[in-house]
Amino acid sequence: MRGGSVAAIMSGMNIDEERKALLHEYERLDDLQRSGLVIIQNPAGFRFSMDAVLLSEFATVRRRDKVIDLGTGTGVIPLLVWARRQPVEIVGIEILEEMADMASRSVKINDLSGKIRIVHGDLRDALDVFGAGSFDVALSNPPYIRVDQGTLSPEGHLSVAKHEVSCTLEDVVNVAARLVKPKGRVAMVHRTSRLVDLLAAMRGAHLEPKRLRLVQARAGTPPMMVLVEAAKDVKAGLEVMPTLMLYGEDGEYSKETKEIYFG
Amino acid sequence: MRGGSVAAIMSGMNIDEERKALLHEYERLDDLQRSGLVIIQNPAGFRFSMDAVLLSEFATVRRRDKVIDLGTGTGVIPLLVWARRQPVEIVGIEILEEMADMASRSVKINDLSGKIRIVHGDLRDALDVFGAGSFDVALSNPPYIRVDQGTLSPEGHLSVAKHEVSCTLEDVVNVAARLVKPKGRVAMVHRTSRLVDLLAAMRGAHLEPKRLRLVQARAGTPPMMVLVEAAKDVKAGLEVMPTLMLYGEDGEYSKETKEIYFG
Repeated sequence: MRGGSVAAIMSGMNIDEERKALLHEYERLDDLQRSGLVIIQNPAGFRFSMDAVLLSEFATVRRRDKVIDLGTGTGVIPLLVWARRQPVEIVGIEILEEMADMASRSVKINDLSGKIRIVHGDLRDALDVFGAGSFDVALSNPPYIRVDQGTLSPEGHLSVAKHEVSCTLEDVVNVAARLVKPKGRVAMVHRTSRLVDLLAAMRGAHLEPKRLRLVQARAGTPPMMVLVEAAKDVKAGLEVMPTLMLYGEDGEYSKETKEIYFG
Repeated sequence: MRGGSVAAIMSGMNIDEERKALLHEYERLDDLQRSGLVIIQNPAGFRFSMDAVLLSEFATVRRRDKVIDLGTGTGVIPLLVWARRQPVEIVGIEILEEMADMASRSVKINDLSGKIRIVHGDLRDALDVFGAGSFDVALSNPPYIRVDQGTLSPEGHLSVAKHEVSCTLEDVVNVAARLVKPKGRVAMVHRTSRLVDLLAAMRGAHLEPKRLRLVQARAGTPPMMVLVEAAKDVKAGLEVMPTLMLYGEDGEYSKETKEIYFG
C-alpha cells in the first residue's frame, strides 16, 4: 500500500501568501482531512500511505505522553497523532535531509512548531540524541523490504523509505525499545510477511506485543499489513483485534475506514 | 470454542450390532459428516471442538505423508485428516488412557485400523517411541490454558485436555519439531492470546512459521483462534491467509465454514 497516496487529498483550498512561501515550486499542499491540517508533499517523490494513517489511529497515545516517530518521512504521523491526541510533545526523526526539511515546513505551515519537532538524523543515533527512556511512546512505519529482496529504486529517497537501506527492522525495534520508559509503548505497522520477524524482534528487545490487528482490503483477500503495539517490560498476553476490512462488499471504503480517515 | 461440540452431529443412523458392541453405555456415536465416518464421544466428557475440524482442514497433508497428532483426544483429527487426504499412516498419541481407548475404538468402528494407530502415552516421550525425524507432518490442538491461569476443572480428563497440566505449549512445539523430518511441517491451532508464545516457540525450535490464519466468529468480532503451519529448517517468510469468518451477517455458517464442515 505504501507509495499509493490517500485518495482525494489534492487540495483546492485558498492558501495565503505566507504559507505559499514555505512550499517549493515542485511541491503541493494536501489536506489531511483532520482538524484543518495540511501536509507538504512532492508528487514525484515518496508520499505518505494509508499505512501511516492506520498506525496513527491504532497507536495508544495519551495527552501526557512524549512521543517519537522513527523515520517520519513527510511528518504525517506526528501531524495525525497531534490532531487526534494533542500529546505533550511529538518528535519525528528522519535520515533524509530533504524529507526532514519538508516535514519541518509542514509543521510550520500548521503552526505546530511548539508541539512537533522534526530532527534530521539517523534513527540509530536517536539514543545519543535523546537518551534512553525519554519517551512514553515510539512509533514507526519503517521500510518494509529487505535489501536482499526486491529491486532498489533508482531514486535514493524512495529506496531509503521503502527498503532497509538505512536501517533494518531489528534496528528500529531495538532503538524504539531503548527510547521508551518501562511500560512505555511501541507501535509499528509492517507487512504481514514480516510478522514473525517483527514479533520476535520485539520480544527479543523486551517489548511484549500486547495488541495486534491485521488489515485486509476486503473479506476473502489476504491481509497485507499488520499493526502491532508492544509494551516494555510487561508480562505476555496478546489481544488480537478484529481484522480491519478497508473496503466493503460494495467496493467503497468500509464504515471503519471512513471513521479512521475522516474521523 | 473448545468444549462446544460441532452442531448437528448427533447421530440417528442405524448401527449394526458389531459396532454397537464397541460403545460403552454412556457413550454415543456421532456422525463426522465426511466419508461416512463416525466418532465415539462421551456426552459428559471432553468432546472435540470446531478448532480440531479447522486444523484438519488447514494443515497441508499429502498422500505420501506419515502424520502424527500430538494429544489426539477423541481421535477426531486423525479421522478427519484421513477422510480428506488418505496419507500413508496417521498416529495419534494420547496421555489419558480412557481417551486413548475411546479413540482406538473409533478407529476400529470406522475400519481404519490399518491406517490410523492410536498410542496411549505422554507426547513428551514420543521421541523415544517413534524416533526423531520419523514423520512428515505433526499436528496438535493442544491444551490452551496455562496452569497459572483459569480454574482447573474438577474432572481430571477435562483439565488435561484444556489446561497445560500434562504438557506446555513449548513441550508440544519442541517434540513436534524433533518428530518431523527436515522441511517437515507442524500445524497447530491455539488461542490468539498465545500467538506470540506459539510463534516464538516455533522459531526457537527451528520451525519457521509459513502460513497463518486468524479465525473470527464474524466481521467486527475479535479473532479468538489462530491456525499456524511451520516448516522445519526453512527460510523465513510468512503467508497470512484471509481471516476466516465462521458466520455470515445472517448469523448462519459462512460459505467457507460449510465447505470445511461438509466438504
